[in-house]
Amino acid sequence: MLFIPAFKDIEAASRLISPHVHRTPVLTSKQLDAISGARLFFKCENFQKVGAFKFRGATNAVLNLTEGQRAAGVVTHSSGNHAAALAHAAVSRGVKALIVMPSSAPEVKKRAVAGYGAEITFCEPTLAAREAAAAEVIGRTGATMIHPYDNFYIIAGQGTAAMELLEDIPDPDAVLAPVGGGGLLSGSAITIRHMAPPAKIYGAEPLLADDAARSLRTGAIQPALPPHTIADGLLTSLCERTFTVIKNNVDDILTVTEEQIIAAMTLMWTRMKIVVEPSSAVPLAAVLANRELFSGKKVAIIVSGGNADLSKLPFGQHG
Amino acid sequence: MLFIPAFKDIEAASRLISPHVHRTPVLTSKQLDAISGARLFFKCENFQKVGAFKFRGATNAVLNLTEGQRAAGVVTHSSGNHAAALAHAAVSRGVKALIVMPSSAPEVKKRAVAGYGAEITFCEPTLAAREAAAAEVIGRTGATMIHPYDNFYIIAGQGTAAMELLEDIPDPDAVLAPVGGGGLLSGSAITIRHMAPPAKIYGAEPLLADDAARSLRTGAIQPALPPHTIADGLLTSLCERTFTVIKNNVDDILTVTEEQIIAAMTLMWTRMKIVVEPSSAVPLAAVLANRELFSGKKVAIIVSGGNADLSKLPFGQHG
Repeated sequence: MLFIPAFKDIEAASRLISPHVHRTPVLTSKQLDAISGARLFFKCENFQKVGAFKFRGATNAVLNLTEGQRAAGVVTHSSGNHAAALAHAAVSRGVKALIVMPSSAPEVKKRAVAGYGAEITFCEPTLAAREAAAAEVIGRTGATMIHPYDNFYIIAGQGTAAMELLEDIPDPDAVLAPVGGGGLLSGSAITIRHMAPPAKIYGAEPLLADDAARSLRTGAIQPALPPHTIADGLLTSLCERTFTVIKNNVDDILTVTEEQIIAAMTLMWTRMKIVVEPSSAVPLAAVLANRELFSGKKVAIIVSGGNADLSKLPFGQHG
Repeated sequence: MLFIPAFKDIEAASRLISPHVHRTPVLTSKQLDAISGARLFFKCENFQKVGAFKFRGATNAVLNLTEGQRAAGVVTHSSGNHAAALAHAAVSRGVKALIVMPSSAPEVKKRAVAGYGAEITFCEPTLAAREAAAAEVIGRTGATMIHPYDNFYIIAGQGTAAMELLEDIPDPDAVLAPVGGGGLLSGSAITIRHMAPPAKIYGAEPLLADDAARSLRTGAIQPALPPHTIADGLLTSLCERTFTVIKNNVDDILTVTEEQIIAAMTLMWTRMKIVVEPSSAVPLAAVLANRELFSGKKVAIIVSGGNADLSKLPFGQHG
């Protein structure tokens, strides 16, 4: 039995988390409209707390803990935005956050998670080591595992970004979100099918991490590929829960090259003047690479986060 | 006789240009409030058309041309935001824009000005060569010179950003703007003295380009220093027109080091997730360097522009 949120669960998440999360703005850009040939609406979760939509799901998960679970704390293994989001969501509500991170994680991410008040357990940089370390923490503390996307409350929380988006922009022809493990895309799809049934729903992912596209095509979850894409938020594979929602609701998964991701990211930085991480540029890259789908259409894009590493930008040192 | 705008001229500019410019948002950041100890309000002119407040003044200048002046076109010499702003303001209203740029200007700025439809005349990278080239263009075409700041309509147009800011945030304790030639600071000062008389008004400039601070201290305009600061929008010296407004209305000019500018710029990129050029970070750097002036206060900052060169960022290649 697979528990999957319905739209009423996303409404409940929205009521619960709205005092704690930012209602992020929807930005437009005449320059990007001219370049794309579409009317684009960007839901800017890069302005969300901790710099990513992940804070929505993490907050919803923490607020749905029982008293006993609150007392024992929460645990996850992640080196990315979910770790920071869960740390901030838990600690700011008085719940202990136990985060398993690979020792190879960037210093800036370690500092961020520590800065939110989490207790960090370092492990070797393999999935097996991460799962073993998390199991050890759970055995020792009784903490509740909050998976980054294979979790009912996480998916419901992520679906609230699309809910706000459709309140502001009620009738898009298409909505795009990046897809890694599928938490954002499946939560968004549940919301969109209810609030804007005719809208096309697209996931967007790097060609170098196209496991979701191949999963949809083959009808079976494909494993994640080696981590060679700049879009380092989109490396994970789908789970049964997210795949079930995606195969039943998403029209297609569009893939883009690394060059297309960097070009789209450059446009967002230089024309919109917003800081976005590479994963967030993947949907715009997909719009620009598929003009036949989007030309003249009203197209909404969920901008997933803004935690770009300023010391490792892909713009080059040329004139 | 020095024609200086009064507040009614800024109101007139606002009425004239508002159909053509963006009303930019005022952003806040709880993280930067915590870091600064003040309540900060950022008027985000980096989101303005052409990416800088300069589009306000340029639009006001173009809309105040006579029919005869419109027919002959406008001219300026600049390698910065004013060139792009005047090009876009003029060409989009059907007026020819003749821009004198040093041949050493970055390719990206040459392309931007050309992209707005201006005719570019290149010259040697000296002030004498720029003035000579502009004089030649005027002699040949009869075009009207639109100086980047020593111009009544430019100053009135720049004052409209502070007007919108004070409509949104009516009673700040202090307002800061960067100061180069003083167009933004003097226009802002006229607005602030009328709309929020008790507010302190501060200019902010790099220590390596502290001619405005020394002008205020000595009571006489000091020449610009060699261009060694990263804040390349703040290299010019004041003129009689802007200096008169500044000495009569501005409480102080605060200076900051290059390291303080880069640290403030890094905070705005990483915490606010907005792209700002180095000159735009100078006021925040001044707030952080002068806690005794701003602690606990309601402080508004005019963020001047977002045209950072992504190929030459100061963040370094370290972890």
